[in-house]
Amino acid sequence: MIKHFLSLSSFATNDIQSLIDRAHFFSLHSKQPDKINHLLKNKIFANLFYEPSTRTRCSFEIAAKRLGAEVVNFVPENSSVKKGETLYDTLKTFESLGVDGIVLRHADDRVFDGLHARFNLPLLNAGAGKFEHPSQGLLDLLTLKQEFGGLNGLKIAVCGDIKHSRVAGSLMVAAEKFGMEIYLCGPESLLPTTTQAFIKKAHFDDILPSVDAVMMLRIQLERHESLELDGEAYHKQFGLSEKRVNTMKKEAIILHPGPFNRGVEIADEVVEHKQSRIFKQMSNGVFSRMAVLEWAVSGEHK
Amino acid sequence: MIKHFLSLSSFATNDIQSLIDRAHFFSLHSKQPDKINHLLKNKIFANLFYEPSTRTRCSFEIAAKRLGAEVVNFVPENSSVKKGETLYDTLKTFESLGVDGIVLRHADDRVFDGLHARFNLPLLNAGAGKFEHPSQGLLDLLTLKQEFGGLNGLKIAVCGDIKHSRVAGSLMVAAEKFGMEIYLCGPESLLPTTTQAFIKKAHFDDILPSVDAVMMLRIQLERHESLELDGEAYHKQFGLSEKRVNTMKKEAIILHPGPFNRGVEIADEVVEHKQSRIFKQMSNGVFSRMAVLEWAVSGEHK
Amino acid sequence: MIKHFLSLSSFATNDIQSLIDRAHFFSLHSKQPDKINHLLKNKIFANLFYEPSTRTRCSFEIAAKRLGAEVVNFVPENSSVKKGETLYDTLKTFESLGVDGIVLRHADDRVFDGLHARFNLPLLNAGAGKFEHPSQGLLDLLTLKQEFGGLNGLKIAVCGDIKHSRVAGSLMVAAEKFGMEIYLCGPESLLPTTTQAFIKKAHFDDILPSVDAVMMLRIQLERHESLELDGEAYHKQFGLSEKRVNTMKKEAIILHPGPFNRGVEIADEVVEHKQSRIFKQMSNGVFSRMAVLEWAVSGEHK
Repeated sequence: MIKHFLSLSSFATNDIQSLIDRAHFFSLHSKQPDKINHLLKNKIFANLFYEPSTRTRCSFEIAAKRLGAEVVNFVPENSSVKKGETLYDTLKTFESLGVDGIVLRHADDRVFDGLHARFNLPLLNAGAGKFEHPSQGLLDLLTLKQEFGGLNGLKIAVCGDIKHSRVAGSLMVAAEKFGMEIYLCGPESLLPTTTQAFIKKAHFDDILPSVDAVMMLRIQLERHESLELDGEAYHKQFGLSEKRVNTMKKEAIILHPGPFNRGVEIADEVVEHKQSRIFKQMSNGVFSRMAVLEWAVSGEHK
Repeated sequence: MIKHFLSLSSFATNDIQSLIDRAHFFSLHSKQPDKINHLLKNKIFANLFYEPSTRTRCSFEIAAKRLGAEVVNFVPENSSVKKGETLYDTLKTFESLGVDGIVLRHADDRVFDGLHARFNLPLLNAGAGKFEHPSQGLLDLLTLKQEFGGLNGLKIAVCGDIKHSRVAGSLMVAAEKFGMEIYLCGPESLLPTTTQAFIKKAHFDDILPSVDAVMMLRIQLERHESLELDGEAYHKQFGLSEKRVNTMKKEAIILHPGPFNRGVEIADEVVEHKQSRIFKQMSNGVFSRMAVLEWAVSGEHK
Repeated sequence: MIKHFLSLSSFATNDIQSLIDRAHFFSLHSKQPDKINHLLKNKIFANLFYEPSTRTRCSFEIAAKRLGAEVVNFVPENSSVKKGETLYDTLKTFESLGVDGIVLRHADDRVFDGLHARFNLPLLNAGAGKFEHPSQGLLDLLTLKQEFGGLNGLKIAVCGDIKHSRVAGSLMVAAEKFGMEIYLCGPESLLPTTTQAFIKKAHFDDILPSVDAVMMLRIQLERHESLELDGEAYHKQFGLSEKRVNTMKKEAIILHPGPFNRGVEIADEVVEHKQSRIFKQMSNGVFSRMAVLEWAVSGEHK
C-alpha cells in the first residue's frame, strides 16, 4: 500500500505517537550521523514548492540528506508550468521519472483531494493552502511532548490569523486526538466561525496566565485580498510582548511556526526569551520530517 | 578523446544501438539500485538550462544521482549572466571548476557549432533551439524498440509544430539510420519545406490507420513570434482524440515528448489511454540519460 | 570555538599560509577523488546568496561535494524573505535546521558586523558588499604562490573599479600580510581615497612593465547609482590589450576574478593569453574553498 502523508486526521493516534517517538529518536542521534545516514540510501525525493518557503523546503531537504537520500528541487518558475502543464501532469512526470516520493506545497486548500488515489508513490503534504500542514503539526507535538512529557490535558492558546493558518489547522486536528484544549485569540475577523467542543475562543490577556503554551501566528498578508496592517496597533492588542510573557506560568512555553514579524505578532525580545521554543521547533522540524520520509517509503508499491 | 553528445547524426548506427541497449539494461535494474549506484561515483555534472524545463533537467539530474554522481544546477537568472557574461565564458568557468560534464539547454539552434572543439570536457545537448534534442531521440528509440523488438521498417506519424520541434528533428535523424518511415502531419505552415526520401507529408486522418506509432507535438507558442492558437479548432483538425485513436491499429502506440496541452493536440482521455506510452517515455528518459552520462565520461581527457 | 571565515585581516599570516598549503594539496589530488571524498562526509552546508553569482556559489558547492559534504541552496526569491523575514532570522533558521556551516553572500558591506558572535556554527563570507571576499583573496594568493614560489616582494597592479571591489579589498589585506606591493590604476573616481604605505597609485601604462602580476577588475555597473560606461573609450585608456600585455615581463601573469566583459577591461584575445591565469584562478577557487570548508568545521561547537 502506498503511504501518503496528507493530513494528521487520517492517522490513528498511536500512529502519530510512533512518528513522534521516531522523530525524538532522531533528535537524540543528531550528533551520530553514521548511525542514521544509510536509512534512506538510494532514495530520491522531489521537492515541489508552488509557494515560497525557507524552513519547510530546506527542512525536508536536510531531513532527506541526513538519512542518505537525494533531493531534486523543482522550481515552478523555471519549469514547464510556464508552458501550461497542469499540476497533475507535473506530478505524474515525477512519478514517471522514478522518484521515491513527492513533497508538495501548494496554495490550493484542496490540492490533494482525489489526487493521491491516482499516484503510485507517496505524496507528502508540505502545506496546502489554509487547511493542513501536517509535518508542522508533528513538530509542534514533538516540542510539546519533549517539554511536558505528555500531551493529554495541555492547554494551548493560539493567537493571530487562525482562519488563514494551516498551522493552526493541523494543531487543532492533533489537539482533538491527544486531548488538548485550544483557546483561539486574535481579531474576531481572523477567527474561524465554527468550532468544536475542545476549541474555545478567549480573550488573549485573560487566557495567557493559565496556558501551558502559546502559539503565535503571523498575519499572512499574502492570503488576504485587501488588508492593511497597522503593525503597532496590532502588537499592542495581540502581540506577545515581554509584559504579556510575564503573566504566563514560568514553565509555559512560546511557540511560533515562523517566519515571524518582530514587533508585530511577537516582540523582538521575546523571540529568544528563555521560555521560547521557537528555534527548537525548527530543529524538531528536521527530525519530524526524517520520521515522515522514512515512514512514507516503508510502504509497498502497488 | 573527449566524448561530446551533441547530435544523433554524428553517431554510427551501432553506437546508438549500444546506448539504447545500455539504457534498456538500466530500465531492468531500476529496482536494484545497489548494482548501479557506484558507476559514476565522484563525478559531478553541471546542469545549465537557459530555457525552462521540468522533464529534461530533472531527468538528467535523477539519472546522474541514480549512478552515484552529483549535480550542480545553474540558473541563469541568479548568475553572472546578469553581469553580461557570455555563454562561452560561463561554460569555460564550469570547465575550470572541474565538473566532469556539462548538460546544456539553450534557445539557440546553433549553440554547439564550433563550441565543443574548444572544451576539454564532455558537452551534452539537452535541447538546442529548434534543431536537435538527441537524448529525447534516444528515449523515443528505446520506447519503440521495447514495444516492437526492432526499429527497421516502423511507420511513424508525427503531427504538430514540426518546424519548431527539436524533438521531431532528432527523430528524423534517427529514422534515417534505423530505416523508419516518417509521415509529417499538421498545419502546412508548421511543416518543414524540404524533406528527404524517407520523410513524407501526409493527411493525419489518412495515415493514422497504417502507422505503428504516432508522435504528437505541442504547438510551441513560445517559439512563434505572433500566433494566436484556437485550441478547439486545432483539436478538431489535428488533435489526437479517442475517435482518432480508434482508427489506429490495436498494437500501435501513442507518443508525446511532453509537456502536453490536454484538449489541444491531445485529448484528455488519450493521455493515459492503454495505447499511450507517454509516461513510459518519461521513465525511459531517465534510463537513456544514464546511458548517455556513463558514455560521456568514459572518454579520456586530452 | 566556532571558526568563522569572515575576513583575511583576522587571520595570522601563518594561518593563511596553512590554508594556501592545504588548497595546494587539494589541487594536487584533484584526479584522485577517493583520497579526499570522505573528509567532510555527513556535513551539510547552506549556500545563501543574496546577490547573483555563478563562480563563487558553484565553487563552494563543488568544493563541498568533492569532500563528500552536501549542500542546500537557498534562493531568497523563493523564500520567506518574501514574507519579511530578516537576515538574522534566516541565518538562525539554518542554524536551527542543523546545517554545519553557512556560506553567505550579501550586498551589505557590514553584513557580518556583530552578527557572527550570535551564532553557534561557522559563517563563511562569500562576498560582502564592496568590502571583503576572503576566499577570493585566498585563491589569488594560491595562484601567485604556485607561479612564483613565494609572495614576499611581489609587485601587483590592480586596474579598474577598485572602490567598489571586494576582490581588491581582500587582495590589499593579503598584500600587507605577505609583503606585496600594490599599484592602483584606473579612473581617478574609482580609486579609494585613503591608502596605506604599501599601496600606491600609478599610471597603468607606466607600471605594467615592472609588475609580476596585473589584476584586472570589471566596472561593477550594478554598484553604481548612475554611470554610463563607454566601453570602447574605457578599453582604450584602461583595458588590458595585447599591446599592453607585450609591455609586461614575460614571466608576469594576468589575473581577473571574473566575470569579465571582453573588449572593455580586457581584450578578447588576452583572456586566454599564455600569460593569463584567469581560468586557473577559477580552478584554484574550488581548491581554496575546500580548504576553507574543512578548516571551518574543524572547530568545536560551543
